[in-house]
Amino acid sequence: MTDARMRPDWIAADWGTSHLRLWRMDRAGAVLGRIDSDRGMGTLRREEFEPVLLDLLRDDLPGAGCLDVICCGMAGSRQGWAEARYAAVPCAPPGIRQATRVATQSERLSVRILPGLRQNAPADVMRGEETQIAGFLRTEPDFDGVICLPGTHCKWVHVSAGEVVSFRTFMTGEMFALLADRSVLRHGIASAGMDEGPFSDAVARTVSQPEVLARDLFTLRAEALLHGLDPVAARSRLSGLLIGAELAGARPYWLGRDIVVMGESGIAGAYRTALDLQGVRARQVGAEEMTLSGLRAAYEDLKEGER
Amino acid sequence: MTDARMRPDWIAADWGTSHLRLWRMDRAGAVLGRIDSDRGMGTLRREEFEPVLLDLLRDDLPGAGCLDVICCGMAGSRQGWAEARYAAVPCAPPGIRQATRVATQSERLSVRILPGLRQNAPADVMRGEETQIAGFLRTEPDFDGVICLPGTHCKWVHVSAGEVVSFRTFMTGEMFALLADRSVLRHGIASAGMDEGPFSDAVARTVSQPEVLARDLFTLRAEALLHGLDPVAARSRLSGLLIGAELAGARPYWLGRDIVVMGESGIAGAYRTALDLQGVRARQVGAEEMTLSGLRAAYEDLKEGER
Repeated sequence: MTDARMRPDWIAADWGTSHLRLWRMDRAGAVLGRIDSDRGMGTLRREEFEPVLLDLLRDDLPGAGCLDVICCGMAGSRQGWAEARYAAVPCAPPGIRQATRVATQSERLSVRILPGLRQNAPADVMRGEETQIAGFLRTEPDFDGVICLPGTHCKWVHVSAGEVVSFRTFMTGEMFALLADRSVLRHGIASAGMDEGPFSDAVARTVSQPEVLARDLFTLRAEALLHGLDPVAARSRLSGLLIGAELAGARPYWLGRDIVVMGESGIAGAYRTALDLQGVRARQVGAEEMTLSGLRAAYEDLKEGER
Repeated sequence: MTDARMRPDWIAADWGTSHLRLWRMDRAGAVLGRIDSDRGMGTLRREEFEPVLLDLLRDDLPGAGCLDVICCGMAGSRQGWAEARYAAVPCAPPGIRQATRVATQSERLSVRILPGLRQNAPADVMRGEETQIAGFLRTEPDFDGVICLPGTHCKWVHVSAGEVVSFRTFMTGEMFALLADRSVLRHGIASAGMDEGPFSDAVARTVSQPEVLARDLFTLRAEALLHGLDPVAARSRLSGLLIGAELAGARPYWLGRDIVVMGESGIAGAYRTALDLQGVRARQVGAEEMTLSGLRAAYEDLKEGER
């Protein structure tokens, strides 16, 4: 069942801004193989999506009929392959019946992009995370609490009774990358590494006094110049200052709630540590596993509907 | 006296990260001419500073003897022409006697770079602003209050009894540029323009609740996508959110103090408006005029010392 040379029955696709991940799937939902590509939405013009997909799947296309491809993520944005709708919260994570069918040149592809979610006030949007939430709700349909999804744009999502009630997006990951790589701070910030002490101290500062964020950033530069601040400590403090400021802003989401952090070890661990300092014990679940689970649910619904 | 073809007695130089401004000066401190260049410190290797200066001053060098050049700014940084020292606060703005003499190939140049200021705790540094403060103190030697110097890195400087007592740097200008030009927000932010209503509303939000900064940034993107937010309003709100967060962090500097905003009209006006909303009436003085005044004071001290 896991022979990479078996022809897949369908393709699960997570097509984000900077990456594309394809899973070659069989009818029963088992993974036959996985393909990773850097051809994210941000690197592609509209007419390039189909050729990229055909190239990556060239050995998988059937001789007759169609290969179902179910996508989530930024491929469905206005700058993406085809604009998929947004379902408005509060609502259950949208499924395959609300997906956008993409017109393709090839007759061997049948591509559907799952909708994102929108919140009218305060205005917010997501694309991709709704599918991870759908995946999570498959295993915990009665979950009542908040799912935190760290990343370039971290989402805090209130889930209750099988629905997304509300959510908020924080640009913490993007801010970190801009400050660490492109601002004057870049001269004194290591490209990797994390020290828990400086990280935790910085979280504690901004979570309790978010006004110090603006004041403490340049301090990292000045301490490097005057006191030889260690670049890994500087990186840890920058991360802590920003995550602490995010926790201050997201307080209504995590205070007194059941929290699940969905993400891969490094960044999800940082959020769990930061929450731990506030006395909040968060569980962690893998993001990729939930994406796949959500796409699998969409495929099952598709087949169900065809019966 | 303002004939551009008269040979200058000395050169006043403001050599910052992104710009170089030279004033051709006579002995009495009058401006004979001005030269603007984009050859800022950030664009130059160490060995390029002298050729740039010789090129811009080629008609001004004397046949015999030396042309005095007095510099302030980032040319004195570790990545600059020659590292000038930092004087430690509290102290009066450092003068020509603490300047760093730069070794030049040309015998026709005598270059001095004025020191910057350092603060050991909380760690902070400035290069260039100390000369503007020296210029300001020439006209108001008894000033007791705070000078706010907006820019890429805005400084709040407590001045009393002719000395810089303490100061703090905020990366607000650089954050604005990174977010407006290089983040996901760039798709919905105008490249110019400012609406006072959205600006003021945004200032009010973050000055009173700095924790909303992290939460409100992505809202600008989502409102553009969902509600067609006007790009000039988005620019105004981004500016207001960041300046409001700065004011929250700088509160000990402006609360109950006499405030002078030193800067050119656009950005200095934005800070004055933001302070006005807090009930603080700030005066405004021109930054360039103060730079020149500070360099002039240094030249007078140089000549005094030679007598």
